[in-house]
Amino acid sequence: MFEAAELGVEVDKQTWEAEAPKVRDALLQAQRDLAGSKYSCVILVSGVEGAGKREVVNFLLEWMDARGVQTHVMRDPTEEELDRPFYWRWWRRLPLTGRTAIFLGSWYSAAIVGRVFGEIKDKDLDQALDRAIEFERMLSQENVIVVKLWCHVSKKMQKKRFKTLEKDKATRWRVTRTDWKFFKHYDDFREVSEHALRRTTIGEAPWHIVDAGDARYRNLSVARIVIDAIRERIALDASPKKAAKVVPIAAAPPPKSLLTAVDHGVSVDRKKYEKRLPALQARLNDLVGRLPKARKSVVLVFEGPDAAGKGGTIRRLTGAMEAGSWEVVAIAAPTDEERGHPYLWRFWRNLPRSGRVTIYDRSWYGRVLVERVEGFCPPPDWQRAYAEINAFEEQLAEHGNVILKFWLAITQDEQLRRFKDRQTTPYKQYKITEEDWRNRAKWDAYEQAACETFEKTSTSIAPWVIVEANDKLHARLEVLKAVTSALEKALD
Amino acid sequence: MFEAAELGVEVDKQTWEAEAPKVRDALLQAQRDLAGSKYSCVILVSGVEGAGKREVVNFLLEWMDARGVQTHVMRDPTEEELDRPFYWRWWRRLPLTGRTAIFLGSWYSAAIVGRVFGEIKDKDLDQALDRAIEFERMLSQENVIVVKLWCHVSKKMQKKRFKTLEKDKATRWRVTRTDWKFFKHYDDFREVSEHALRRTTIGEAPWHIVDAGDARYRNLSVARIVIDAIRERIALDASPKKAAKVVPIAAAPPPKSLLTAVDHGVSVDRKKYEKRLPALQARLNDLVGRLPKARKSVVLVFEGPDAAGKGGTIRRLTGAMEAGSWEVVAIAAPTDEERGHPYLWRFWRNLPRSGRVTIYDRSWYGRVLVERVEGFCPPPDWQRAYAEINAFEEQLAEHGNVILKFWLAITQDEQLRRFKDRQTTPYKQYKITEEDWRNRAKWDAYEQAACETFEKTSTSIAPWVIVEANDKLHARLEVLKAVTSALEKALD
Repeated sequence: MFEAAELGVEVDKQTWEAEAPKVRDALLQAQRDLAGSKYSCVILVSGVEGAGKREVVNFLLEWMDARGVQTHVMRDPTEEELDRPFYWRWWRRLPLTGRTAIFLGSWYSAAIVGRVFGEIKDKDLDQALDRAIEFERMLSQENVIVVKLWCHVSKKMQKKRFKTLEKDKATRWRVTRTDWKFFKHYDDFREVSEHALRRTTIGEAPWHIVDAGDARYRNLSVARIVIDAIRERIALDASPKKAAKVVPIAAAPPPKSLLTAVDHGVSVDRKKYEKRLPALQARLNDLVGRLPKARKSVVLVFEGPDAAGKGGTIRRLTGAMEAGSWEVVAIAAPTDEERGHPYLWRFWRNLPRSGRVTIYDRSWYGRVLVERVEGFCPPPDWQRAYAEINAFEEQLAEHGNVILKFWLAITQDEQLRRFKDRQTTPYKQYKITEEDWRNRAKWDAYEQAACETFEKTSTSIAPWVIVEANDKLHARLEVLKAVTSALEKALD
Repeated sequence: MFEAAELGVEVDKQTWEAEAPKVRDALLQAQRDLAGSKYSCVILVSGVEGAGKREVVNFLLEWMDARGVQTHVMRDPTEEELDRPFYWRWWRRLPLTGRTAIFLGSWYSAAIVGRVFGEIKDKDLDQALDRAIEFERMLSQENVIVVKLWCHVSKKMQKKRFKTLEKDKATRWRVTRTDWKFFKHYDDFREVSEHALRRTTIGEAPWHIVDAGDARYRNLSVARIVIDAIRERIALDASPKKAAKVVPIAAAPPPKSLLTAVDHGVSVDRKKYEKRLPALQARLNDLVGRLPKARKSVVLVFEGPDAAGKGGTIRRLTGAMEAGSWEVVAIAAPTDEERGHPYLWRFWRNLPRSGRVTIYDRSWYGRVLVERVEGFCPPPDWQRAYAEINAFEEQLAEHGNVILKFWLAITQDEQLRRFKDRQTTPYKQYKITEEDWRNRAKWDAYEQAACETFEKTSTSIAPWVIVEANDKLHARLEVLKAVTSALEKALD
C-alpha cells in the first residue's frame, strides 16, 4: 500500500515554477465552486511523524482563500471534550456549507496509536474503524466532501528527518521524545495503518497516500487531490455522465510511479533459466502437495498489458503441479448471467475449495482497470470497488487463502514488438485483435489506473508483485520465486 | 423494538377476504415490475422460532409467480460450503436480474445464535454485523433489493405454539429439542436480536418486524412489505420525486398499533396527584444530585402531537432539580447555520456535559416525523436516519447517558378540545398557530411515522415510553415515575 509512496519522487524547481501557479489557480477555482455549492469540505491530514503534516496544513492555508477555511490542530481532547462522546470534538468543528475545515490529525489517530502500543486489541480497532466509516458515509450523504490524506515517508527518511532537525539548535525542539518512541515502532505503525487504510478506503471517502519525501511533490499532490475531490463531487451532483468526463488534474502523470520505476533492462540468459526453472518447479510441486493437509488454498492473480506474457508464465506454474490440484480461470467479458448479478458474483462462484491453487488470468481487478478506463462503469461504482475488493480478499485470507497478485510490466516498445510478431506468425495471429490495438492507445490511462490499484489494494494479506516482464524468462522465474517463498512462509 | 409486534393484532376472516385479493394482485404486479427492471430481490425470512417462518416462505411462494422465485432453506453449511469463506453460500444463491430469492434463515442467524449461547463475544457479533452491513450495501448498490423480515412472537405465544403442536400426534415432530432449548433462552435471544436489528437497520436495507401472532395479519404484512420495497426502489430509479409520491400499500393503518392500543381512559384525581407529585419530585432531586459523582448524564426526549402537554410535563421535571443541573433544549425550525451542517449537528452541539440532565422538547426525531410527513426530506434520507439515530444514541449510552424518550399520546378529540381552549383563552393564544391546524389534518400520517419510529428506534439502551396523556396529571406522574426508576437502576 505504501510502496508507491517510497519511490523518492522529486519535483525540481523549474517544474515547480511551471506547475505551481496553474495548480494554485485550480485550487482557488475549486474553492470558489465549493462556496457556491451545497457542499462543505473536510480535509484530514494524517500520516507518519516526520512526513510534514504540519507543513501540509500550512501550505493549504497559504494557497487557499483563508476566508473560507478553518484549521484545527487536534491535540489531546480537552476536559470539555472528554465529558462527551468521542465524536463530539469532530462534530463541533464541522464546516458550514461552502466552507472547508482542515484537521491536523483525524478520528483515526487515537485508535491507531492505541493499537500500536497495545492499549487496545484488534477487534477494538476494527470497531473504531467501522464507526469511522459510518461517520464518513453519513457526512458524505449529508453533503460533506471528506478528503483523507495520508502523508508517508519511509523509515529511513523518518530517521533522517529527525536527525537533521536535531542537529540544528534552532529546530531541535521540533523532535520530541514521543517522536523517537514512535520511530521505534515504525514497523508496527506501518502494519496497523495499512490495515486501517485498507478497511476504510470507501468509495465515498477514499484514502490518498501522499509521497511526502519531497516537499514540492508533496504539495502539488495534496493540492491536486483536494481539487479533484471537490470537482468530482460537484460534477457528480449535476450528472454521473458529466462526472465521468471530469479530467482529474491529479492525472498529470507523476514523474515516477511504481510502473515507471520498473527496471526493464533486467534479463536472464537461457542457460541459467533452464537450470533454475526445474528447481523452482520441483519446490512448487512439493509445497502445493502440502496444501490440503494444512487446509490452505492459493489464489494467484495475473494482470498486466496485453502480450505481457501472462499465459506463458501461468503455464510454467501449472506445469509444475499435479492435475486436480490447480485450476486456471480465464476472465473474459462477463456472460449474460454474470451481468445479471453483482460484479463480484462471477469470482465468488469460481472460488476454489480448500487445498487447491486457483490462478486467475485477469480478475476482479477488471472493475478498476478496463471497466474504469473504457468507461464501462461510472466513477462512483469503480471508486467503491477498492473497498469491496479489499473486503473480498480479506474473507479469502481469513479462510486460509494465500493470495498473490502479479502485474507483468512491459514497455510500450516491447508490446509493439510482440504485437507485430503475433501478426506475422500464423499460429499466433488468433492472439491479436483490434481491441488490443485500441487498448494500447490508452496506455497512460491504464498505467494510471494500475498505479491507483496498487496503492489502494496492495496489502500485507494480498500484496501486488510487480514483475519486470520485458524478458519473459526473467518474469517466469520471478513469479515462481514469489509463489514458492510465499508458500514456504504460509506453510511453516 | 419488539413491543409493537406483541399487540396481538388480528385480521378477521371477512377483512382477509376483502383485502387478500387486492394485495395478492399488487404483489404479482410488483413482481412483474421487478422482472422488467434492472433489479433483483432478496427476501430474508428471519425471526424467533415458532413465529411461522416456514409458513411465510410457503405463503410467498403461493402468492408469487413461481417462475421468478427461488426458495432456499438455509440449514447447516455443507462440506462444500465449509470449504469456502462464509459468504460463499449466499453469493452462490443470489438471484439473477428480474428474479427473487427467498431465504429461510439469513447471514445473521449464525452470529446471533452463537452470541446467545456464548460461543462468541459481543465484539465478534459486532464484527459479523458490520460485515453483513457491508454486504447488503454492496448488494443494494449492485441493484439487489434486500428485504429483511423479522417474524416475532412473544415468549408466551412461543410457548403456547410449541405446546399446541406437541399435543397433536400429527404435528409433534415439528417441535424439536432445539426449539425448547431456544425457548429457554428466549430473553437472551430478544436482547441479542434487538442489538443486531438496531445496528443493521440501514437505509438501504432496513429490518421489518412482523407481528406473527395471527397468520392472516402476518401474511398481509409480509406481502405489503415486499410490495413496497420493490415499488419504492423502482420508482426511486426514475426519480427521487417520483419515489416520494409512491403511496406505500403498507400504509393501510394496521388494525392496532402501539398508539391505537393506548388506553385513553386512565386518569388520576387531583388529590392523589398532589400527594404523589412532591414525593416523586423529591426522589428525582435526590437522584439527579448523585449524577456528577457517578459520572452519568441524562437525556430525555419529548415528542407527541401538538398540545399533548410536553411543556407542562417538562416543567414538573425541571421544577424538581437544582438550577445548573439541567437544561431544556426546545427544538424549532433549524437556523441557517444549522441547515448548513448535517442534520444531527444541532443536537451534537447541545450535548450536555457529564452529570447533567438535558431535556429535549422535540428532538432529532423530527427527521423521521415532521420532515418525513411534510416531505421536507426525500425518502432515502429519512430512511437512513433510523440507523444514524441509533448510532448517535449508542454513542450517548456508551458515554454514560441514561436515555428515555417519551411520546405523550392524546386523542384527536382531546387535541381539538385543547386547541379550542387555546384559542379562547387570551394568555394561551400564542400557543396556537395555523401550522398546528395543518399538522392536525395529517394525524394518520404522523401516527404511522411515529409507529415506525418506535419499531426502529426503541431499544434497551434508549427505550420509547408511550404515555397516556389525555389526562395531564396522569401523564406527569407517569413520566416522573419512568425517569426516577430509570435513574435508580442506572445509579445502583
